[in-house]
Order: sequence, then C-alpha cells, then structure tokens
Amino acid sequence: MKNLLIPQDLEQEISLHIEKTRGQMSTLGLDALLVTSNVNLFYCTGRFFRGYAHIHPGGVEYFVVRPQIFEEKENISYVRKPEQIAELLADKNITLKGSLGMEEDTLTYSDAMRLRKIFTGVEIKNGTSALRGARLTKTPYEISLMRYDGEKQVKVYRKVTGLYRPGMTDLQLQIEIERELRLEGCLGFARVAGNLMDINMGSVLSGDNADNPSPYEFAMGGEGTDPSLPGGANRSVIRKGETVMIDMNGSFNSYQTDMTRVWSRGDLPDIAFKAHDCSIKILRELEQIARPGTPVADLYLKAEHMADKAGLKEYFMGHRQKAGFIGHGVGIELNEQPPVTAKSKVILESDMTLALEPKFVLPGIGAVGAENTYVIRPDSVECLTNFTEEILPLY
Amino acid sequence: MKNLLIPQDLEQEISLHIEKTRGQMSTLGLDALLVTSNVNLFYCTGRFFRGYAHIHPGGVEYFVVRPQIFEEKENISYVRKPEQIAELLADKNITLKGSLGMEEDTLTYSDAMRLRKIFTGVEIKNGTSALRGARLTKTPYEISLMRYDGEKQVKVYRKVTGLYRPGMTDLQLQIEIERELRLEGCLGFARVAGNLMDINMGSVLSGDNADNPSPYEFAMGGEGTDPSLPGGANRSVIRKGETVMIDMNGSFNSYQTDMTRVWSRGDLPDIAFKAHDCSIKILRELEQIARPGTPVADLYLKAEHMADKAGLKEYFMGHRQKAGFIGHGVGIELNEQPPVTAKSKVILESDMTLALEPKFVLPGIGAVGAENTYVIRPDSVECLTNFTEEILPLY
Repeated sequence: MKNLLIPQDLEQEISLHIEKTRGQMSTLGLDALLVTSNVNLFYCTGRFFRGYAHIHPGGVEYFVVRPQIFEEKENISYVRKPEQIAELLADKNITLKGSLGMEEDTLTYSDAMRLRKIFTGVEIKNGTSALRGARLTKTPYEISLMRYDGEKQVKVYRKVTGLYRPGMTDLQLQIEIERELRLEGCLGFARVAGNLMDINMGSVLSGDNADNPSPYEFAMGGEGTDPSLPGGANRSVIRKGETVMIDMNGSFNSYQTDMTRVWSRGDLPDIAFKAHDCSIKILRELEQIARPGTPVADLYLKAEHMADKAGLKEYFMGHRQKAGFIGHGVGIELNEQPPVTAKSKVILESDMTLALEPKFVLPGIGAVGAENTYVIRPDSVECLTNFTEEILPLY
Repeated sequence: MKNLLIPQDLEQEISLHIEKTRGQMSTLGLDALLVTSNVNLFYCTGRFFRGYAHIHPGGVEYFVVRPQIFEEKENISYVRKPEQIAELLADKNITLKGSLGMEEDTLTYSDAMRLRKIFTGVEIKNGTSALRGARLTKTPYEISLMRYDGEKQVKVYRKVTGLYRPGMTDLQLQIEIERELRLEGCLGFARVAGNLMDINMGSVLSGDNADNPSPYEFAMGGEGTDPSLPGGANRSVIRKGETVMIDMNGSFNSYQTDMTRVWSRGDLPDIAFKAHDCSIKILRELEQIARPGTPVADLYLKAEHMADKAGLKEYFMGHRQKAGFIGHGVGIELNEQPPVTAKSKVILESDMTLALEPKFVLPGIGAVGAENTYVIRPDSVECLTNFTEEILPLY
C-alpha cells in the first residue's frame, strides 16, 4: 500500500465485489446504489477514504472527500461536499432514474436527510441489504486473507500456555496475549458492526466472571475493568478449579477469524469436561450439517437440542444472561450477517464464512466450549482455525 | 461496579449531567429529549446499556432493552422494542407535547424513522447539540477522572526511553508501549466520535511515515500496516536523524487524556529543534490566552500566525496533507467538541477540556511538537499531562 493506489491485482477483485453487489441490487429492485459507510467503501474500492461510491447501470463513480491522493481516473472526482455529486453526475450525462439505494441502516439521520435532498427525482430505498448480501459470501481472495488470519491466530494461541505465570490475573494474561498477537501482525483493532458494542483486543474470561452480564451482544459477558467498557476480564486471579476462556482478536489484515479456546490450571469438576465435550460434539455435528441449502436456524436448533439432551440447558450460551445465538458471519467486521439464531431466515450458501461458538457458562467454574471460523463448501466445511479443542493447561 | 448498579455517590454526579443537559435543551427550545447513543446514555446514567433515556419536564424515564439488571426504580422500565415506550409513557401520565429532541447526528436513518413513528404529536428536532453542549464543559468529578488519566499516561511515557532497543521498528516500540499502558490500567480502547475514523491503541510515527497521508482526521497521518487501518506506524526501522512522535491511548477510565511527545536517536538537523521549539512556544502562548471568553478560533489563528512568523508554514500541522485544526475537546470521546479550527464559533468556557497539539511534519525527518490536555480555568489553564516537552532520547 506504499502509494495508497489500488494494486493492479486488486482491481479484478474489486470488480468481483461490485458485480456481487449488482446482483443483490437487482434482487432488491435497485437501479443505483450510493455507498457511504467506510467498511462498504473499502469493500467497493480496496481502500478507506471519506467519500461516496455511486454504482449505477453504466458503471461506478467515486466521489472522494479525503484524502485527495487517488490515482487519476475518469470515474474519480474530488468533492468538498455531497451537494456537488448531483452536478458532477449531470456533467457526465449520468441520469438518475428509478430507485436509488442508500445505506439507511448505517447512515445517520442527518446525513441521510442531506443526501435525500441531493438525489431528487428518484425513489430512495434502503440499500443496506445489497451490501450485506454481497458480503455474505466471500471470494477466494477474501477467504485467502481469512486463512492467513486463522494461521496467525493459531500461532499465538499455541503460545498461551507458555505466557502464563502463577498468580496472574485474567487481565495480565490477556495483556501478554495481546502483545504476542501484535508482534505477529495483529492490527489490534476489531471492526464491530453497529454502534452498540465496544471491544478492545478481545475477551479473557476467568472463573465466575464469565457469568457477569454485559450490555453488549457478544456471545459471552464479563464485567470488564471499568464501567465504560463493560465486558471481558475483571482482574480476577486465575485459580485452580476454574476455566479461562480466551477469545482474542484475529485481525491480521482487512479480514479476521474468530476463535475461542479454554485453558485451566487443573482440578476441574466433571461437569466442566462434560459441558466442554458437548460443545465439541456440537461443533462436529454442525460441521456435518452446515452445507449450502441448510437453514442457518437449523444450526442453532441442532446445537440447542444437543445441549438440552445433555442436560446442560441452563448453562448453554450463558447462565445469568443468555446470548440467543451460537455463531455469526465474520469478515471485514467481527459480527457480520448472519447471526446464527433460532429465528434466522438465511439459508447457507457456498463460500459463506461463519464463526460457530457453542459455549456453556458454569457457575463457580467458568466458561467452556470452543469456537472456530469455517468456510461453507459444497460438500464440506473448511475450518480456518485448526488447533486442538481440548481444555489446555496453565502451569 | 460489582453489581452494575449506579454507585450512590454517582447519583449526584448523574443529576448534574442531566441538569446541564436540561440547560442546553432550554437554549435549544426542546421540551423533551430522547437519548439513544451509548456514549450519551452513559453520560446520563453512569453505565452502558441498550435502551433509551427520555428527559422530560417532570423527570427522566429509562427504557432498558438489555441487560435486565438495573436496580428496581419507578423510572426504569424494561422493553423489548422502542414501540413500547409510547404506551409506557402514557401509563405514567407523561404527556408528550411541544418539541422532542433526538440524536439525529448519531441515530441511523432507519432507527430515527422508527422512533419518529412512535413519538407522534410532537415536533421532532435535532437534539444532538443538547448533549454535545452539556459535555462541552466537565464537572469536577469528570476532571478528576481525567487528572488520573493524565498521571497514568505520564507514568508510561516516562518509560518509553527504557523500552527502546536498537534496531526496533516504530511498531515494535509501539507494542511495548501498549503493554505498559495496559499494565497501568489503560482500557486499550479509544472511543472515537463519528463513524469515519478507526484507531487501535494510538499512533507512533517514525521519520517520513509522519508525512504519509491518511483518510482519517487525526492530527497526524501515517501509512499503517494494512490498508484496512490506514494510519500510524508502518514498520519503519527507527533511524538516527529522524524523530519518533508518540501519541498513545490515555483511556484509564471512562474519560481520557490526549498527549504527544517526541523521541529521537539523536543527530537531528537544526530545523527539527527550531520547529519543535516553535510548537512549545505556541503551547506556552495558548496557555496564556485560553481563558473563558476567548474564541476557540483565536487559539488556532495565534498558533498559525506563530508558525508562519517562524517560517514554518509549509510544515505546520502536516506537510503533504494538513490537518486544519490544532486541537480538540476531549472527554468520554477522544475527539469531542470543539475542534480548534480557524472557523470555530465556540467561545471558551471554564471547565472545558482541550487537547492542544501544534505539530510540524518535516520531510526526511519526521514529526515534532507536543500535545497536552488542559482544563480551562477562570484565570489559568490546568495541564493534565505534566511531563517534559523536550525531544527525548532513544539509545
């Protein structure tokens, strides 16, 4: 990225993203789409910038506010304010007609109202689903980035046992993992969809802290160390007979993998192993049924059924507070579509990437279970986070 | 925060926040205000939760979506969806009339439209400024939290020289600083207003990387290590004759300080010291004129004038790309109101907290200058980031 130009080999990749987006636009009956969020501008250009991408029947026009350092191209214009877009489109004889999609689920009300005044004579519709739909499945290039993330994440998880020192708190262990992740190239930043959830480099939950509710919709809670970031580690000393669940940042490029493993200093009660085994069995089962054509809801229902049958219902996906999902899409954002819930209407397709995380929270013990990131393939799933799922030792 | 209740001594603090918000509502002609963003819900309650706070003439009603663990109180209701709010208000004989402010600059268009359908019979106005205005000045408690942040941040900055090892890259040094910050209690997360800027734990800019433009509106750019996070360190080896500008996360609680210092391995050309001295002189001058009643724009203009007079105009606040501001408010969010620009209409008031960061980017050398966080007082400024402003050694 030395000169911030789009590398030549990325141009074809970006064309593919635009083509996928056009497919979704067609399904939604959109003639044009105005891309405004930084994540989706990145998806449609391979770079972050402040501005707008206007996908219309004849091509894509880019309106760049900042920085003014794109390569020169016919379809790139520099603007100071969005009001200039209508005029520039008119200059290029690009007529606005029919319906225009806008990212109404991420645009602020103020920005949306301002844009609606500019794009007159067209029917404005919510175009959020066009981009969500395009990003639901990944291209081979996107998957290759995520494969890299998974390998790096595993490389660091392998070191966790060696990073532990007796007497450490959850937070102290987390800080050493953060450092190893960063040294391996982790960006130290997770892009989270929506404005309601904040996270630093991840979650390390020790013992009963796993049972502390959080306002965020991550799979597990935790008290955090300050009311302003109410999730994750709370400076509990890691004790024998308790588990430590580690679910840390896997962003080593524009994409990421999501992966959880459990460690312990030993002396765990039988129920910890029983619930952990149940989680692993659920993962094995979901790996068998997660195929193109399978309803996402079936994954949730199967997992819930297996937890019920094992007599572990009250601990499944939380105890004092329950998560309501056992997985989620993952890609540029940590929490992409679809959430894996009982009510999901999404049907699995080839090349979707899903994090599956059937977990249990056992009072007095902590959280158990594992999480992997998978690519859905026609006759299989590809696991991107290949590392033993056993409860691992700290000593 | 063990039980996530609002501590007793915080109740009075929260009343003060509500009172300040009411003052702004009155100025804006708002009869009621619906608080929806996580940051402002925190400001109005002392905690993060998913839900709504409805400030009306008779009091404040809280509607909590998640988690359902507030203490029991008459003015706290649990809801599954916002549509229940109207009914609950009616049950309590809270009549909606006049004008209702909504956070239109942060609410998504979709959420705002949904809420507008619920609050019928009132005139909906943009209430964003009410909360921005209230948060513009800080209470003694908020300032005490920021004083703590500044002390902690200084404690870590003191260690930077000792963390350096010959041959290190900017990123390797940054990672060791991140670890020290985290061990001191830094949350490892900066709350940034708006949806256009992303950051991990901060910025370490070595040599010419300081001159790499970024799409973000932070004061300094930098290439970053991946196109998905285009700012900050880019794995440059730290070399003699270059500077290393360190501007790292100061969030040790719900508030934060913002602080920059410069290090170098020595052999800097004279212009580096000249520009650095100019930055320090600008800070000293701004400390003299930053008083209640002073226009914020005057701070910018004075700084710009001093840089011009020193013949350093082309390097001021960036070289290839310029920032357009020399400071900003700071508090719960890193980039609060007001930005310190030439066009600011804001007049300084007592108890505003401002980060001032007159910086220069010198091609072939790097960035110089310093940044402090200040509290505006009637007859002085209180600096919250007290640490030598000299260029510090790495060896």
